[in-house]
Amino acid sequence: MTTKNPQEIKLRIGVIGTGAIGSDHIRRCTHTLSGAEIVAVSDVNTENAKKAVTPYNPNARVYESGHDLINAENVDAVIIASSGQTHAEYVLSAIKAGKYVFCEKPLATTIEDCQNIIQAEQDQGRRLVQVGFMRPYDKGYRELKKIISDGIIGSPLMVHAVHRNQKVGESYVTHMSIFETLIHELDVLRWLLNDDYISAQVIFPRQTNYTHEKLRDPQIVLLETKSGIRIDVEVFVNCQYGYDIQCSVVGEKGTANLPDPAAVSLRLGEKLTTSILTDWKDRFIEAYDIEIQEFINGCLAGQLNGPSTWNGYVAAIAAVACVKAQDTLAIEPISIPDSPAMYK
Amino acid sequence: MTTKNPQEIKLRIGVIGTGAIGSDHIRRCTHTLSGAEIVAVSDVNTENAKKAVTPYNPNARVYESGHDLINAENVDAVIIASSGQTHAEYVLSAIKAGKYVFCEKPLATTIEDCQNIIQAEQDQGRRLVQVGFMRPYDKGYRELKKIISDGIIGSPLMVHAVHRNQKVGESYVTHMSIFETLIHELDVLRWLLNDDYISAQVIFPRQTNYTHEKLRDPQIVLLETKSGIRIDVEVFVNCQYGYDIQCSVVGEKGTANLPDPAAVSLRLGEKLTTSILTDWKDRFIEAYDIEIQEFINGCLAGQLNGPSTWNGYVAAIAAVACVKAQDTLAIEPISIPDSPAMYK
Amino acid sequence: MTTKNPQEIKLRIGVIGTGAIGSDHIRRCTHTLSGAEIVAVSDVNTENAKKAVTPYNPNARVYESGHDLINAENVDAVIIASSGQTHAEYVLSAIKAGKYVFCEKPLATTIEDCQNIIQAEQDQGRRLVQVGFMRPYDKGYRELKKIISDGIIGSPLMVHAVHRNQKVGESYVTHMSIFETLIHELDVLRWLLNDDYISAQVIFPRQTNYTHEKLRDPQIVLLETKSGIRIDVEVFVNCQYGYDIQCSVVGEKGTANLPDPAAVSLRLGEKLTTSILTDWKDRFIEAYDIEIQEFINGCLAGQLNGPSTWNGYVAAIAAVACVKAQDTLAIEPISIPDSPAMYK
Amino acid sequence: MTTKNPQEIKLRIGVIGTGAIGSDHIRRCTHTLSGAEIVAVSDVNTENAKKAVTPYNPNARVYESGHDLINAENVDAVIIASSGQTHAEYVLSAIKAGKYVFCEKPLATTIEDCQNIIQAEQDQGRRLVQVGFMRPYDKGYRELKKIISDGIIGSPLMVHAVHRNQKVGESYVTHMSIFETLIHELDVLRWLLNDDYISAQVIFPRQTNYTHEKLRDPQIVLLETKSGIRIDVEVFVNCQYGYDIQCSVVGEKGTANLPDPAAVSLRLGEKLTTSILTDWKDRFIEAYDIEIQEFINGCLAGQLNGPSTWNGYVAAIAAVACVKAQDTLAIEPISIPDSPAMYK
Repeated sequence: MTTKNPQEIKLRIGVIGTGAIGSDHIRRCTHTLSGAEIVAVSDVNTENAKKAVTPYNPNARVYESGHDLINAENVDAVIIASSGQTHAEYVLSAIKAGKYVFCEKPLATTIEDCQNIIQAEQDQGRRLVQVGFMRPYDKGYRELKKIISDGIIGSPLMVHAVHRNQKVGESYVTHMSIFETLIHELDVLRWLLNDDYISAQVIFPRQTNYTHEKLRDPQIVLLETKSGIRIDVEVFVNCQYGYDIQCSVVGEKGTANLPDPAAVSLRLGEKLTTSILTDWKDRFIEAYDIEIQEFINGCLAGQLNGPSTWNGYVAAIAAVACVKAQDTLAIEPISIPDSPAMYK
Repeated sequence: MTTKNPQEIKLRIGVIGTGAIGSDHIRRCTHTLSGAEIVAVSDVNTENAKKAVTPYNPNARVYESGHDLINAENVDAVIIASSGQTHAEYVLSAIKAGKYVFCEKPLATTIEDCQNIIQAEQDQGRRLVQVGFMRPYDKGYRELKKIISDGIIGSPLMVHAVHRNQKVGESYVTHMSIFETLIHELDVLRWLLNDDYISAQVIFPRQTNYTHEKLRDPQIVLLETKSGIRIDVEVFVNCQYGYDIQCSVVGEKGTANLPDPAAVSLRLGEKLTTSILTDWKDRFIEAYDIEIQEFINGCLAGQLNGPSTWNGYVAAIAAVACVKAQDTLAIEPISIPDSPAMYK
Repeated sequence: MTTKNPQEIKLRIGVIGTGAIGSDHIRRCTHTLSGAEIVAVSDVNTENAKKAVTPYNPNARVYESGHDLINAENVDAVIIASSGQTHAEYVLSAIKAGKYVFCEKPLATTIEDCQNIIQAEQDQGRRLVQVGFMRPYDKGYRELKKIISDGIIGSPLMVHAVHRNQKVGESYVTHMSIFETLIHELDVLRWLLNDDYISAQVIFPRQTNYTHEKLRDPQIVLLETKSGIRIDVEVFVNCQYGYDIQCSVVGEKGTANLPDPAAVSLRLGEKLTTSILTDWKDRFIEAYDIEIQEFINGCLAGQLNGPSTWNGYVAAIAAVACVKAQDTLAIEPISIPDSPAMYK
Repeated sequence: MTTKNPQEIKLRIGVIGTGAIGSDHIRRCTHTLSGAEIVAVSDVNTENAKKAVTPYNPNARVYESGHDLINAENVDAVIIASSGQTHAEYVLSAIKAGKYVFCEKPLATTIEDCQNIIQAEQDQGRRLVQVGFMRPYDKGYRELKKIISDGIIGSPLMVHAVHRNQKVGESYVTHMSIFETLIHELDVLRWLLNDDYISAQVIFPRQTNYTHEKLRDPQIVLLETKSGIRIDVEVFVNCQYGYDIQCSVVGEKGTANLPDPAAVSLRLGEKLTTSILTDWKDRFIEAYDIEIQEFINGCLAGQLNGPSTWNGYVAAIAAVACVKAQDTLAIEPISIPDSPAMYK
């Protein structure tokens, strides 16, 4: 049924890592978004990769090596959804190949790797990487940012935030509260406030019985920004009751709160209730769609605008300071260098 | 950048009527949804048609006649978004051409036209038409329907609904409260309750000063269903404060309310406030996306599942009774025949 | 510990009827309110009367006859909380004795008795009776009335109200939905809107399984006022989930809703919940306090200002029309005469 | 109109300090509460004292000296609502006279004065003092405490609290954020959690432009309890938008939030709004009533149960540590001794 016209050009994407989020992106690119198709996949478990892509494109090629996938001639862009430690290696490989790459957070697990990536991208002279911070695409955060930018609540002075997961597995340990969980706040709050961090402190409240030996849960992270805004983020990853993201910005004249997702309210059994989500994938499902669509559009237009390697780098700098603060319980300085022109 | 594979087949759509909603569908099919492209347009104002499609597909063909568009060889499916009185004619033409057609509400402005369309579709032996009722695709209504179907609030006994527009123009007159506005409730409430109407009554409260001579505003429509459920719908199209859709279902054990759209809450100037939408296009924007995507998917799969000509017909029968009740102020019976097997 | 001064004068009250509400008033006058003491009680069950008053005033006298209580020298004012059919007789007796009387609703069960009471009070030349409509003393209704009076939402056009009880006993039959339950809305909505009723219609939705043979439940009562305001009140006395009073006033420019009682919100078990009250005595507990305090103050000051016999009479006229409408299912006229000067 | 019976005994109260809160208590005792009368007043401005009491009891005696009032034969109990620095002196005087005394917060402005008061009360062998912490009498806090005590949200781990005033005058300086404002949280959170503080830290966010040179505003106070619960309290006394008290308790299984006061919700001008209170006297008006009524009842029964001198002492210890933390910006230890048996 197809005619040939410019609208028809499709971005041919290869996906590295076909776990929960990688599989979700395959579905998303095929069925929900426009302008892209999945033509290649790769995973440490090749069988899984095959299974993940077959329902969406039985003709997609399954690669043993992520690097081969990156260098395949018919792959225009790469989505990296493999485990965190492998991100840097694949991102560098994609930059070297001159291909667009969408990398799930974290960009890298060390500051050095982030710096190497930035250097590689600088050497290419243009942005090739979008980092998977989806919250700036969320409708609620966008409304919040507009309210702040428009000066409606006056200059922001404080942020009270909450990041609660229903539960995590045994492999989730104390520092992951920072690198896996807080990382989203570290990125989105900078964007929201248009400001940078200068210090971090971590407080460990009494622990929940629902945690295990290697995980301090909950934690409270206190951040300070250049302009003096004070941020407290409660990170509680075994809160039992659901997945709950809260953000309250206190300005000189008023406060603005991120909305809870809309849900039917019931009057039943002597209670007024609305459901709370439990799966993080549902909470920002529309933000994921917009994020990846914007990546696709950016690739097709030759101009990426989403979260950059700089965002990934700065989040990593702040995260490293927070992890140090977990150990020292002291106020740890955060020093963020000036960004290269490309990222301004 | 394109390879040839089965995923690539695109539905080639022609759009008749390029006003607000038609233009929106062109944008949506091109930029937001997957699996379709706009290849042809038509409008009573050919210049407007040209302008509407050019940014999205400069190569799309502009037709003087909607019928020529329908019969064009490269048009696989048609979206009808022209003025209400022309719908029946184009739908019949599309059915005759054996092409899939998405028709904005109303399906037709007379019962006879609806019957003719149903007959034509019956003659073709399969569903070719989807009617533009988008609310069943809204997340809130879907959650509401699931709660009812799951028996959570017990058998539904009553529905209290509200349909408020901020304001309407001078050309909007009393009976349009039914055919342009209430029509959405007439469709979605049948779907929600899985029931049919048997009578209607209209009550005219004291009029607002913000209306004009030819429009009774607000109105209250009382409906009764076969199973005895009683529905009251307030239709108030100059309510001044915003676009507001409410729906509360009262069951034997509890009640369930359609959620308001999520919005940032502000504490400012001695008030706690959230914004209320004013543009109806924003209220169900995601529902519109899903609705058209489902139409595209249905066409590509050869099987339409969305609101059918029967839905359009039944809504028209109920609407005609409501308009009569506006005149008589009596309880008017509504008689809905048994549906052909194709629509069950 | 007491000195003699003007502040010290106490209103000596006798209570007729020591069931739930009568006992509550004894407690209230003794422990919560100021300026009154309970000196006498009477009940069809003398033992109950004794038990009810002893913890609060063991010296209070227990009368076999309500009329003897009314005429006792040391009784300054009377509270009537006996069964509805006995109200008129005791009110007339108190008026004849020239004593202030607080009469729980209904003032009387027939129009004629109301008229007799009004005549008796007219003959005395001053107000002696306050009728037990407590909602005008509720903070929420008062805020609502102020918003309407201040013109904030423009002229009121419609009211959507809900009166739900968790459950009622077997002795509660269809017409009691009007005289026992709707009667509160009949009074408070007149006060809220400063308007009178001109017609009533009753609709019987599908019945709940939680009712019995002699009770149609739920019901919807439609009222029309002189100025054309249309009111719908859902009365649902076996709603299962709690005691729930809702009132939404729709004006030309906006709407105002009676608040739900404040309650702690919980995030627990995948739900956000607040409790719904189940006992009607809790819902308006502060209004009851204010109502009786105002009666006490009015008696001490020689000037009653609360709901009058006229309010009781008009509510009865409207209630009789509603009961008729339950039988006829037709629109029944309500004719309310001009009030005597004393009640304006 | 008065008979003589045991119910009639009234507590004869003298009020020292007839500013805003003192005058309010005169009104409250006379018109709202039962069992008390105001027989004496005293103020630094004798004219004001006279004016404050005359409308309620023209026969009340006006004293030049608070001590004379305390020792007056017809004064059974004293309410102290004079300026904070005078509290200790009057409380000691009342204890010495063996009279019941209700003292507005703070009990005293130094730890030593608190200790002296406790010693004096110990010497009398029974409680004579109730300190004016009214929040434990608030319905919302009580519901919150019950939820915690019942184990509904599991063991409490964190509390996020907010204390915002619309604005304060030029005389309000940095340390008053602790002694005048935070003092309420210092008391009520101990009561809520049934726990004691062990450390305090203060954070100064970027200042609002709406403050003055001698006031750091806002502030965040971090508290730690014996059981490891971590508390953050935002104190923001020029928040501009209203008087706002928030308290969210995070437990192992869920969270419980103090409710906002119930208020009519408006849909108006493209916004859904409810009013926020601006006057702190309105926020806890019912709690004030219950607090003073309980004091009256306790005096009449010879047994005080409300917040004790120990509560006042502990709040002062914690407040002193917080003020120190304002200076040092370090984590300051809080050491609370074991309470004498009388206060357990």
